[in-house]
Amino acid sequence: MDVKSGRVDLSHGAGGRASAQLIDEIFRDAFSNAWLDQGNDQAAFDVPLVPGGRMVMATDAHVITPLFFPGGDIGSLAVHGTINDVAVGGAVPLHLAVSFIVEEGFPLADLKRIADSMGRASREAGVPIVTGDTKVVERGKADGVFITTTGIGVLAPGVELSGDRARPGDVVLLSGSIGDHGVAIMASRENLGFETAIVSDSAALHRLTAAMVAAGGTGLKLMRDPTRGGLAATLNEIATQSRVGIRIAEEALPIKAQVVAACELLGLDPLNVANEGKLVAVVEAGAAEAVLAAMRADPLGREAVAIGEVIEDDRSFVQMTTSFGGGRIVDWLTGEQLPRIC
Amino acid sequence: MDVKSGRVDLSHGAGGRASAQLIDEIFRDAFSNAWLDQGNDQAAFDVPLVPGGRMVMATDAHVITPLFFPGGDIGSLAVHGTINDVAVGGAVPLHLAVSFIVEEGFPLADLKRIADSMGRASREAGVPIVTGDTKVVERGKADGVFITTTGIGVLAPGVELSGDRARPGDVVLLSGSIGDHGVAIMASRENLGFETAIVSDSAALHRLTAAMVAAGGTGLKLMRDPTRGGLAATLNEIATQSRVGIRIAEEALPIKAQVVAACELLGLDPLNVANEGKLVAVVEAGAAEAVLAAMRADPLGREAVAIGEVIEDDRSFVQMTTSFGGGRIVDWLTGEQLPRIC
Ligand SMILES: Nc1ncnc2c1ncn2[C@@H]1O[C@H](COP(=O)(O)OP(=O)(O)OP(=O)(O)O)[C@@H](O)[C@H]1O
Ligand SMILES: Nc1ncnc2c1ncn2[C@@H]1O[C@H](COP(=O)(O)OP(=O)(O)OP(=O)(O)O)[C@@H](O)[C@H]1O
Ligand SMILES: [Mg+2]
Ligand SMILES: [Mg+2]
Ligand SMILES: [Mg+2]
Ligand SMILES: [Mg+2]
Ligand SMILES: [Mg+2]
Ligand SMILES: [Mg+2]
Repeated sequence: MDVKSGRVDLSHGAGGRASAQLIDEIFRDAFSNAWLDQGNDQAAFDVPLVPGGRMVMATDAHVITPLFFPGGDIGSLAVHGTINDVAVGGAVPLHLAVSFIVEEGFPLADLKRIADSMGRASREAGVPIVTGDTKVVERGKADGVFITTTGIGVLAPGVELSGDRARPGDVVLLSGSIGDHGVAIMASRENLGFETAIVSDSAALHRLTAAMVAAGGTGLKLMRDPTRGGLAATLNEIATQSRVGIRIAEEALPIKAQVVAACELLGLDPLNVANEGKLVAVVEAGAAEAVLAAMRADPLGREAVAIGEVIEDDRSFVQMTTSFGGGRIVDWLTGEQLPRIC
Repeated sequence: MDVKSGRVDLSHGAGGRASAQLIDEIFRDAFSNAWLDQGNDQAAFDVPLVPGGRMVMATDAHVITPLFFPGGDIGSLAVHGTINDVAVGGAVPLHLAVSFIVEEGFPLADLKRIADSMGRASREAGVPIVTGDTKVVERGKADGVFITTTGIGVLAPGVELSGDRARPGDVVLLSGSIGDHGVAIMASRENLGFETAIVSDSAALHRLTAAMVAAGGTGLKLMRDPTRGGLAATLNEIATQSRVGIRIAEEALPIKAQVVAACELLGLDPLNVANEGKLVAVVEAGAAEAVLAAMRADPLGREAVAIGEVIEDDRSFVQMTTSFGGGRIVDWLTGEQLPRIC
């Protein structure tokens, strides 16, 4: 197999010798671990014996374009994204499964670059890729590569976070600046005619969440990663699920000056722009200080801040006190869409 | 949302209100269960406490065309396919995660039909879909719908099946006729100019495998579902992984007359054609009769037969004694490819 200049063809997805060779040379190598090396139709591993504990499962397809962007690529993003959905449930991520849909003609060298990046991200996170699948579709029937990652994790006894647990008086925390991922992607789409120094915030948040779970105890109500739809969508989801209102302060929101500038140019509201390495948490007022301190002690939560509070509101509105002292409703995604941002 | 005549647009994948509505009206409805209804970024469930037991995880993308075919559709196939990869490991399937990649413009009515079919297949199997994801890509950047399903399951203590456990003297069992799925798909691709009454064998095999595990005990060495690449690929995989040879008898192979005829017309070898409701098992000679009886007692194993035996062979060849008394090597997929068969 000529990884340097070869291309994926339909035989790589047909289940014959070429498929086996592609998997061996590109994926098994990049992800190498004892479970994947079993080479069976499924990976087997010990049942995590946590008396009274629970498990979680999360899945995400990744269809981002471009495939390579400042701060990451579809491979690292696919690892981080699914680890984060497991982690914001308060769980310790255990294993990942990956599924590739590859377009005929896709360069093997790019596939290898993506696989290597996934392997690196999974090793850095300590969450092995234990099983996988590779399908190939005809030229023009996909767009390069799509990757679905599925993760499982273990919840310690007593950890029960859920989007319906926010109550009036709770404090809303945010782990850092918003809009970085979305702006980095938009900027790297050639036709936009501008460049910024902004890189994606794509990162695995499970160490940060573990510290928050430890510090917050039962005072930690829920966590969520504000991906597609941005902070606005996430706050609206929480308000709807918990049947409460949320009021945040514009002044409190950490947004990089370059992100503000890029959003102005693009006619976007940073509140609607996707993040891939940030989280929102809702905590009881009494636990806010401890959780915030734990967040700030983690490299990925250094700039964590309290951005608002949960209030009573039958309409489940999210409101923002603006820097000029006024107020406005923060709605779900409005205006321009940002397709294929993750 | 106009499910009857509406179409998927990019906003359905953007993470805003339209995404939430699509998920509520099409997916949550079709898959409804207590875990999915949590509505969080991940589904939480009890740790299956099996002292000394293990778990398995398997994933498959499904890119089949056409989406609807005799005997099933991409939705039921995606449920069966992943349940089968969990089941042939000897495990009891527990939960599924699903990820959809949908092309802009795809009819909502077709999406609902597929989701309903998945819901039905998952309920019939007793394996709930507990979490999901939905992404939308621009028109022309995918082909209708791609679905990745990931499954987890539990292995009882002592069950340790693996592709490397075949030994000379072991018997090779097959659960029923080969080639049905592949021929049904090829026949339903309009441009082939022929029709057969053959329907896909797509089915969930976990009840059959549970009966085999119970009957075979430690005499059951491994099971595998001969999907892409057909029986030929599966036998070659086993021979390679176990470093043995395999000899099968052509006479013993159950193949429907219509499948033979269709394969002749298409220039295909039934041994290379995909199956979606069959399995191959390797068992110690002493356990063969008991396992075969257990298979035949299950509706999906009624036509189970012994097709050959494991032999010593450094080259890991798969050989077939032909009906005329001759012999030939059964190689991995040769000749024409059958793209997007699952
Ligand atoms: N992208 C990948 N990364 C890592 N491992 C992979 C990848 N694709 C396939 N594999 C591994 O290769 C082996 C063969 O996979 P394959 O998909 O052919 O098996 P299967 O699911 O039983 O067959 P089918 O997909 O036809 O149903 C499995 O062990 C699988 O985990
Ligand atoms: N096709 C689907 N079937 C069933 N449930 C789905 C489906 N798509 C999404 N869901 C459910 O809808 C909720 C929202 O999913 P969503 O993908 O928006 O969350 P996320 O993964 O946290 O965000 P993102 O995908 O932007 O990273 C989750 O509870 C998810 O399980
Ligand atoms: Mg299989
Ligand atoms: Mg996600
Ligand atoms: Mg597979
Ligand atoms: Mg999330
Ligand atoms: Mg499979
Ligand atoms: Mg998702």
